[in-house]
Amino acid sequence: MTTSREIRLKSRPVGVPTAADFDLATVELSPPEPGQVQVKNLWMSVDPYMRGRMYDRPSYVPPFELGKALQGGAVGEVLVSGDPAFAPGDLVQSMFGWREAYNAPASALQKIDAQGLPPQAFLGVAGMTGLTAYTGLLRIAALKDGDVVFVSAAAGAVGSVVCQIAKLKGHTVIGSAGGADKVAYLKAIGVDHVIDYKATPDLKAALKAAAPKGIDVYFDNVGGAHLEAALDSARPFARFAECGMISLYNETGEVKGPSNIALVVGKSLRLEGFIVSNHYDLYPTFAKDMAGWIAAGQVKGRETVEHGVERAPEAFIKLFNGENLGKMLVKLA
Amino acid sequence: MTTSREIRLKSRPVGVPTAADFDLATVELSPPEPGQVQVKNLWMSVDPYMRGRMYDRPSYVPPFELGKALQGGAVGEVLVSGDPAFAPGDLVQSMFGWREAYNAPASALQKIDAQGLPPQAFLGVAGMTGLTAYTGLLRIAALKDGDVVFVSAAAGAVGSVVCQIAKLKGHTVIGSAGGADKVAYLKAIGVDHVIDYKATPDLKAALKAAAPKGIDVYFDNVGGAHLEAALDSARPFARFAECGMISLYNETGEVKGPSNIALVVGKSLRLEGFIVSNHYDLYPTFAKDMAGWIAAGQVKGRETVEHGVERAPEAFIKLFNGENLGKMLVKLA
Repeated sequence: MTTSREIRLKSRPVGVPTAADFDLATVELSPPEPGQVQVKNLWMSVDPYMRGRMYDRPSYVPPFELGKALQGGAVGEVLVSGDPAFAPGDLVQSMFGWREAYNAPASALQKIDAQGLPPQAFLGVAGMTGLTAYTGLLRIAALKDGDVVFVSAAAGAVGSVVCQIAKLKGHTVIGSAGGADKVAYLKAIGVDHVIDYKATPDLKAALKAAAPKGIDVYFDNVGGAHLEAALDSARPFARFAECGMISLYNETGEVKGPSNIALVVGKSLRLEGFIVSNHYDLYPTFAKDMAGWIAAGQVKGRETVEHGVERAPEAFIKLFNGENLGKMLVKLA
Repeated sequence: MTTSREIRLKSRPVGVPTAADFDLATVELSPPEPGQVQVKNLWMSVDPYMRGRMYDRPSYVPPFELGKALQGGAVGEVLVSGDPAFAPGDLVQSMFGWREAYNAPASALQKIDAQGLPPQAFLGVAGMTGLTAYTGLLRIAALKDGDVVFVSAAAGAVGSVVCQIAKLKGHTVIGSAGGADKVAYLKAIGVDHVIDYKATPDLKAALKAAAPKGIDVYFDNVGGAHLEAALDSARPFARFAECGMISLYNETGEVKGPSNIALVVGKSLRLEGFIVSNHYDLYPTFAKDMAGWIAAGQVKGRETVEHGVERAPEAFIKLFNGENLGKMLVKLA
């Protein structure tokens, strides 16, 4: 028997999640049945989109169930295999995060060829996070030569990859983030204009100053005031990749939509939302491009790490306080 | 000398325009110089977008100037020609509306081959209005088989053409309009579900009842509560052709943007604004398609007509009270 600790959803958060919304439980795993594999997780991911699954409402993924272990991206090592496709020691990726170990059907696992990268890279730049940045910037926003790019939550997991891809392709990049550490980080990765939105009384004015001729692409991770500012500064035919609106996810009162939404008509703007799981067809080209960029030192993963599954709720909550720089991860073993 | 009466902008409207914002003036026209043409207008168009040009702010077209004649689509007849390309009696289209007659360079006029249609059709179904509907539905919203289509201001100039094109292509169409006359008209042109938004306490619920499985295309002429309802009822990957937001054009207080804007992310929606003048490349295919549809009785122009240039301000103001059924026109001669 293998013992595993896991995090369960105790109550549906109202507003910003708190530690009291989560439970730590211990389970015993039997040996895997034929066709199953037993995996020990090494790393797990916490992501803003998980907040949406904590509401009990229809969405593109079903809601998390109360009293059950949460789910999310994880990278682990095969302990025991009941399937010929996997052997002990294999590195695998799954959606069975928020737990130390698990049994799962072989079909729910993806073997990773690490190619010299650390395992957690497959939860960040070389995984879903990187593919999200790649898809949003290149397919949804259809980045083209000369575009001025604005990125919110620019020092976050996805935003920091967006900034690096836009820079290596030669674009002028404006990044918004909160706090001196993030500002310093964004300058270090070559972002042309950094807006510390927490220190800025007027975000619209700050964006206009950073992009006096306007922006062509907005990569939105935040919604709210950032989206309004982007609409204001958009050039005609600008494209907005709507990746997330973290500023709204914990809103309990009425959300204020962008008051300047009519600019979508007047400036012929395109706002397009996307979910990375609908764009896995891009994975092969992404994997090839990203491997090259990482090898050339043009894209570097940056991580904020908490240790131990019992810290996972806190890691998750920190996302909404903007306490992560780069990808927020929990190291499990 | 030819005498012409014209409407000038006297003051920039605050909120809904009133008669006091306009002046009626009389001018004398000299004979046209070489290269010029003198035209007597037969019909002129009033359109919601003109409200935007009454603000003094940068936009996709420059603002109207105070004390000068307004501009807009018009169809007229050549009186005297100083250019070999035009002869007296020719039917021409121009942007010199809001006046009874004018001299203009030949290059600012477009000759019309009426093909049996009445001249005012070229301000409506067979002109810019029709091309706007065609562009928004087929290019911007990229209408495809099986799409359920929702149209706001469905009994208006553009909306009524959108409904007819969507119906002749076999789609389920839901139209929103205000008042019994418009509802009856929309039913008569075959719209499947008509929502009288003025008689509906809950627009979101009404749209959900009309489209229980959701909508795939929203042709937006209105913004505001209609846009919110459309976001609520949108199926994943729905496309919104953002043609206008008339509910916001006269807003003097703070505009409330759509509170459910985050659905753009969760449902992978695409909202795209457009201005018909950027899509004139579609004109030849549009003209061919529309001529066929009109000949087959599949698209019929519907008009609301005021008489005399002195009534043009009132015709324009009526747009914002929703007093027009179909295309609002002013007959000048």
